Order: sequence, then C-alpha cells, then structure tokens
Amino acid sequence: MTAGNERSPGRRSRRGHRVKASFTQLPRQKVVNTFKPTELLSEDQIEDIHNASMEILENIGIMVRLPKAREILKKAGQKVDEDTQIVYFDRGFIMEAMSHAPSEFTLHAPNPECDLAIGGQNLVFSMVASTPNAMDMDGGRRTGNRVDFRNFLKLTQSLNILGTSGGYPVEPVDIHASIRHLECGRDFATLTEKVPYIYSLGRQRNLDGIEMARIMRGISMEEMLTQPSLFTIINSNSPLMLDSPMLEGIIEMAAHGQVVMLTPFTLSGAMAPVTLAGALTQQNAEALAGMSLAQTVRPGAPVVYGGFTSNVDMKSGAPAFGTPEYAKATIASGQLIRRYNIPYRSSNVNASNAPDAQAAYESEMSLWSLVLGGANFVKHSTGWLEGGLSASFEKVIMDVEMIQMMIEMMKPIDTSPDSLALDAMREAGHGGHFFGTQHTQERYETAFYTPILSDWRNFESWVEAGSPDAMKRANTIYKSILAEYEEPPHDPARLEELNEFIDKRIAEGGVKTDF
Amino acid sequence: MTAGNERSPGRRSRRGHRVKASFTQLPRQKVVNTFKPTELLSEDQIEDIHNASMEILENIGIMVRLPKAREILKKAGQKVDEDTQIVYFDRGFIMEAMSHAPSEFTLHAPNPECDLAIGGQNLVFSMVASTPNAMDMDGGRRTGNRVDFRNFLKLTQSLNILGTSGGYPVEPVDIHASIRHLECGRDFATLTEKVPYIYSLGRQRNLDGIEMARIMRGISMEEMLTQPSLFTIINSNSPLMLDSPMLEGIIEMAAHGQVVMLTPFTLSGAMAPVTLAGALTQQNAEALAGMSLAQTVRPGAPVVYGGFTSNVDMKSGAPAFGTPEYAKATIASGQLIRRYNIPYRSSNVNASNAPDAQAAYESEMSLWSLVLGGANFVKHSTGWLEGGLSASFEKVIMDVEMIQMMIEMMKPIDTSPDSLALDAMREAGHGGHFFGTQHTQERYETAFYTPILSDWRNFESWVEAGSPDAMKRANTIYKSILAEYEEPPHDPARLEELNEFIDKRIAEGGVKTDF
Repeated sequence: MTAGNERSPGRRSRRGHRVKASFTQLPRQKVVNTFKPTELLSEDQIEDIHNASMEILENIGIMVRLPKAREILKKAGQKVDEDTQIVYFDRGFIMEAMSHAPSEFTLHAPNPECDLAIGGQNLVFSMVASTPNAMDMDGGRRTGNRVDFRNFLKLTQSLNILGTSGGYPVEPVDIHASIRHLECGRDFATLTEKVPYIYSLGRQRNLDGIEMARIMRGISMEEMLTQPSLFTIINSNSPLMLDSPMLEGIIEMAAHGQVVMLTPFTLSGAMAPVTLAGALTQQNAEALAGMSLAQTVRPGAPVVYGGFTSNVDMKSGAPAFGTPEYAKATIASGQLIRRYNIPYRSSNVNASNAPDAQAAYESEMSLWSLVLGGANFVKHSTGWLEGGLSASFEKVIMDVEMIQMMIEMMKPIDTSPDSLALDAMREAGHGGHFFGTQHTQERYETAFYTPILSDWRNFESWVEAGSPDAMKRANTIYKSILAEYEEPPHDPARLEELNEFIDKRIAEGGVKTDF
Repeated sequence: MTAGNERSPGRRSRRGHRVKASFTQLPRQKVVNTFKPTELLSEDQIEDIHNASMEILENIGIMVRLPKAREILKKAGQKVDEDTQIVYFDRGFIMEAMSHAPSEFTLHAPNPECDLAIGGQNLVFSMVASTPNAMDMDGGRRTGNRVDFRNFLKLTQSLNILGTSGGYPVEPVDIHASIRHLECGRDFATLTEKVPYIYSLGRQRNLDGIEMARIMRGISMEEMLTQPSLFTIINSNSPLMLDSPMLEGIIEMAAHGQVVMLTPFTLSGAMAPVTLAGALTQQNAEALAGMSLAQTVRPGAPVVYGGFTSNVDMKSGAPAFGTPEYAKATIASGQLIRRYNIPYRSSNVNASNAPDAQAAYESEMSLWSLVLGGANFVKHSTGWLEGGLSASFEKVIMDVEMIQMMIEMMKPIDTSPDSLALDAMREAGHGGHFFGTQHTQERYETAFYTPILSDWRNFESWVEAGSPDAMKRANTIYKSILAEYEEPPHDPARLEELNEFIDKRIAEGGVKTDF
C-alpha cells in the first residue's frame, strides 16, 4: 500500500475516487513494527517446546483424515497407518519441508495499491471474520445476513488501516450455502479492492475462490502460481487432527501458490493441555504438520503460522480471550514461529458480550501482545466480540482507534537537535508556556496523534452533548462512514468476466452442501 | 508483603482479622516485573537527551523560588542569581549528588506486612490521588468530600494489589484546609494499615505528616532517618521552576530520610516542548534539579524519579493521557531513569469522562507502557478518570482487574517436562478432549487467572441477567467490598498517641492556609 489518503494518478484516476469520511483516519500505509520482539522464553525453553512437538509428530502422530493427503505424505516417506489414519512425521522431513517456506511474500490485491507485505517486520490488519451474529446499538444482536455482511465489507474498504477482510465478517445465512462463496466473492470484488478470502470447505470452493481472485487480478493461472492473490485459514481439529475439507484446502491452495494460514485452535484446558507449555507444544506440532504438507505439495508455497492458543473458563468451559494466558501465549508463539523463519498470524480478540470496558481491555491485551510477539498478520483486528460469536459495528470503530494508537506508538522517537528543543525552552522561559513558541507553531498540527473516537472535551461540555460514551460515539462514527461509502472503481472487463463466471457457477448449482 | 489473603500469626491474630470479599482477588504479594525493559531509544539517543538536560541545568538554569533552597545550593557550590532566583547547576554536582540516591529501599508501613519494596524489578500499585471530584453510577459526579474519601481508603485497605494510597483519593473539601492533613492522617491511620502520604503544602504539614507516620510506626525520629515511612510527590512548576512549598517539601522530607517522588508535570505542547524528545529533556532537567537538592540536604535520602510526560490536545489545550505519545514517553523515561540507577514512578491514567471503553484502552496504554518501561511505583493505579479530575469507584474495580491481569501475565512460563504434557496428549487422544485427563484434573483449579470483573457467560445467560456491562458489574463489586470492609487492627497505644497528637494540633489551629 502507498501512503496518502488519496489515490496516485493511474487507471482509476478519471473517476477521481477517494475515501471520504467525517473523521480523520491515518493514511493507507505499510505498517512496520519497530518494537524488538519480547522474549518470555529462553532459548532453551524454545528448544524444549520444539523438541516436544517433534516427539509428538514422530511418536504420537497426527490424524490425517483425507486419503489423498495421506498418500502425498506417504510418497514423501512418512509412516502412515491407514487403519487409524495417523501419520507419523519424521523431524528431518518437517524441517526440510519448512526450509522451503518463504519468510516474506507479497499478497496481491485487485488494486495494487492494496497489496500486502506479509512477514518480516510488517504488520497487516484485517476485519473480523466468521461470526454467526452481527450487532449494533440500533438493531441489537441478529443472525448474520447479507445486509450486515455488505456493510462490514464497506467498512473494510473505507478504513485505511484494514489491509483486507479476513473472511466473511458475519456469515450471511440468507444466501444458500451452495452458492454463498460465489455471491460473497462477488461482494468482495465489487465492494472492496482489497485481497479476497476463501473458506476451505471442500475442494470446489477453493477452486472457485482461486478463479475469482485470478479474474480480479487480470492475470493467468500460471502467473497466479508466483503471485499469491488469495488466502485461507486452515484450523486443525485439535487435538492432533486435520479433517478432510481443511486438508483439501491445504492441497488446492498450495498447489496454486495461494496463501495457507495454518491456525491450530488450541484452547488450553479443552482441546489442548491445561498448561501453557503443553498447549504451545501441541499448537506447534499441528501447525508444522499442516504447513509441511503444503510445502510437500508445492515447495515454496506461501504459508503463515497462526497462533491462537488461549484458555477456557474452567468453571463453564467457555473460551476466554485477551487473558493473561492468551497474552503470554501470543508473545511466546512469536518466539517459536521465528525459529522457523515464517510469517506469524495473530488476532485481536476478547470475550465480552458488549463493546464495553471489558471488550477494550481484553482487546488491548491481544493487541499489545501481538505487537510484542512480532505478529505479521492480524485476523479479527476490528469488530470481534463475544468470543467470536458476534461482529459489532461499534467495536470496529473502537478497534480502529486502538490499532491506530499502536501504529503511532511504533513510530520512532526523533532526538535530532531541533527536537531536543533547547531554544524553545529559552523562548518559553521559566514558568512560561510553549504554545506560542515558534517551535510549537511549526509542529503543532502534526505533533500528536489525533483520535477518531476518544473524547477529550471537558466534563461539562461532554454532559451538555448528552454524555455520549465510547459506544454511542462509535455508533455515530460507523454510520457516518457507511453513509459516505463509495464503491471503488474496478476494471469493467474484469468485473464482467467475474460476473459471467459467478453466474455460470450459480446456474450449475454451486457446490454440494452435504459434505 | 507476604503472600496469602490471611494474616500470618502475630500480634494481630487474636482478632482473627481478614479481608473478606465476595470476589476472589489475588493474594497480597510482592510483584516482580519479569519483563525485560523495552528499548525505544538507542544508547546514543539516551545520551543526547541526558546531555541536553545537562545543558539546560548549566546554561538555562532552574528557577528556585525558596530562599533557603537557593542558600543550600549556593553553599554546595552552585551558581545562584538572586535577582532572577535562577540556579545554574553544574553537571558534575548533579551526577555526584545523584550517585548517593539509593537504587532500592523499603518504604515501611504501620503493618510490616504492608512494607513496600521500591526499586529494582519491584512494582508497587497505589490508589488514585488528588482528584477534586468523586463519581459513581448511583450518585453521579460530586465535589470531593470526606465520605467518599473514606470509602476510597476502605477500598485501598481491602484491595490486595494496592500497596498504599497515593495521597487523598479525592479531596475532602468539607474538612477545613487548615486541619485537613491532620484529619486525613487520622483516616489513613485508622482505615488502612498501609504506608501514609503527606502533601507538600508548606513545611508544617510535612512535619505533621512525618510525626504521624512516626507514631504509627512506633519508632523514634532517629530511627525514621533510616526507615522511610512516608512519601510525598513533588511536582515542578514546569517549565524549569520549583516553587516554595515544593522546595520546603524536598528539604523537610529529605532531612528526615523520607521519600520524595519528584515528578515534573511536562505536558508536551503546553508546559513542555511539543516534541517528545524536548519534553523528556525538560522532564529530566527538572527531576534531576529537585532530586539533587534532596541529596544535598541529606546524601542517600530516598528519592524516586516520576515520569509524567504526556501531550495536550492541540485543538483545546486539554491534557491527554494514555496516548501513543504518553506510552512512548513512559517507556523512554524508564530508559533515562535507569541511567541514574534510581526507582521510577509512573501512573495509570486516561482522559475519559466515563468508565467506558475509552477509559479502558487509554489505561491499558498506560499500564503496558509502564510495565515495559520498568516502572517501580504506580500512582493513580486504580480509579483515575477524566484526566485526574474525578476518582471513579467503578473504575477502581476495572483497574484492579487490568492490573491483576498484568501481574499474572508477568509470571514466567513453566516448561518443565510435566508441563509439556505429552502424556496428557496421549491420554486425550486424536480429536479427544483434555478436561477429563489426569493432567488437567490435577491443575485446573489454579491453571488460569480467575477474573473479578470480566464476564464470560454466554450471551443468552448474560441477557437473562439484565445485560450488565462492565460498569454495572464494577458498581456491584465495589459496593460489596465496602459492605464487607473491616477496620484493620491497630496497636491501641500508637492509635492513642496519634489521636492525642492530632487533637492537640487541631486545637492549635492546624496550619495557616494563606501561604
């Protein structure tokens, strides 16, 4: 992405399109995490976890449900027990396979200005995904539907800090499951110009997603092999299992050079051991198993290691997020992942039922730990609520504020002689004031971060304005962004080709839904 | 402080006193910050700021309003201009003086179990202080008064993570200013057993505070010299000025071996340069000037360097807190302060008008940055709202939750063979569940942090309970703690002596209020 709120001149300039908004957001920018990663684990501890995960892979094995996947792994020399479907991975094989995974790559968008740099010190944010419900102050909580789905995509397009949507922000259940990925693909392509996503729910959906992404990029399938333009999340069926649709996703996406983000859902105390070290060990084994399959299908295929280890509430079994354990796992996962020199996906999560103080402090635990952990791609960056059961419009705005604050915080401190400001102190004098100094006048407009949501009015003015709390203000802001939304310009030929493809596939009935 | 909610046997055990509460809080504990401090500034940058602050001290000077202070500094060889009241400090003098300041010390409480370790990797939290208003959901915002003042002190006593109050949580304006420090001293001594505080508002108040602290410790004035038992905050009158009451506070407290926390109020853009480096440079000059005076009065007197640099809203001039700039200043201040090998005071601050999401995310910015900055003492840890204009009862509970989460997060990750849990994975099996495993059963009760405020019920149960958001739940919790509050046991002889002293001083008319 390039800096600046407005487009650079080019094929789209004739429409003069720009994102208007009644609030001042940060410009589109490539976010670089300047913080040195925090080290919670010693080198020895990282090796202990690595070695324990190798022992899992070699001696306990991973259940691999898809025959084709077992066949690939068997051909690659791994020990396969067809009766139990368990594959025993050799550690030499794992490490050799992982050595081909790129440490950094570009994820290409339909609009090249929205290309994403994945890996290294880069940090990319994406909209909440895969929630069954949408929520706002006006309509309360409701089942996912296409209207809300489209509104979240419009926010994805309008908000500069969002690199992409990370799936369906909310599940539009009013679109039949057989054609949902096609209609949603149409919405992705028309309402945004950012990188699309495909769910790995059977091979045909992956293939449709790849074709839709290819069309909107305007390139050949051959070019797609070296230009990742689509991504998918693969969750292992923890503990120690990969199911068939996920394995099909790994195989098809890797075969086409598209991005697989492998994220074990290791909830400590439920699908993973109650100890953090145990949960991280299991996460590591599951992630490496899936990613090594991708590398076997196509060495060099872009993969991302997703860290999602959290804990459950041991009283109720409910998943908890943004906890102290989650924060530690997030920082420690970064250390583990850097051992394999591949990009790291994390999330901005919480378990609150409302966009209140709890939602904010749990989110901050997630955000700080992913910054300190050196994450590269952040799923659910904006809008996640209720442990992922709801996408909240107000929470989107709160998260944008929190993330913009993190981005500003990561900018280095300037200590050039001018910034040390001795002359300004001489000018202000003892007990004086700096506002009138030349030093301040030259800098005040850009010296500090300007919030979009935080309200710094004095109490009396705030009461006079109706005492609007953060939720109320967020409600106003998100609606103003939607009111000002403009569809981005697209290449008409590509859009026509896309619509033809989608219409044809829908006429064919889409995909079977009884897998 | 010792671990455990209940007292160890001893002189107080006969009353069987314990803090009861309807919520499970962390036990009293010595908090050790295990995070390695984050480095935002390079070594060169730290030296640049240090040298620039030395240039201020030597060539621009600090206005020192109190004749006695100028006299002390003149005797110590510093260049004093009596006409302008400006003292020009030699950098050799500054560094020699600072070399006597202890890097760590114990701040003694009336109850030795509440002694505080200041400095090193220790982290001490304290109640909000010095706000003119109190606030809760029931009574709204009201002018500070003794009832609210006492309720905040009761919370200070009941909450295990609070090492002390950090002044008057709210100003009890219904106590006449001439005797306020005496009546408040009585409340400190009776309602809590934690370290007391005295405001530096004229020499006599400092002396009264020292005497009250001495009585409650049951030691001699001679012993007080080496047993710090009281602390005060000294704010410079930024830019580059120290006023008379503050200078009297430095002199009297240092002379008696009591703790001076020197905190320049360097708001970037108002009382300090608009650049962060400039504000930090000024902060450093002001802090070193005041602390070197303390060291001149009594070499080795315990001092703490307070970092409070934030920025103003350049539109309105209102102070902002918990901003990206504040977080950077907090982390960078830690680097500067460690250069002088003395303890670091920070704060948990925000500028929200309500205990909402903004209050939470701005506070989290403060908390994370002070942990990463290696702060040792945290003023305003719980309850601060509205840029310090209100103390909020609900915010106290939110902050306790946020701080407890930080404390839990700082506990190291165990990677012993047992915690790697390979046997548990064998027992759970592929696609199984860990709840029933022996590994989980042995650990589940203490495996994870148990929140006091966060609500992890599912949405339906939460709605059935009336959809209580974090503010509503915090309101219920703080009132239940107050309802269960019990006055701590005190040595009757000390309390009698204290009351006699206070009654005598009140009969004398307290202190003049026309200074």
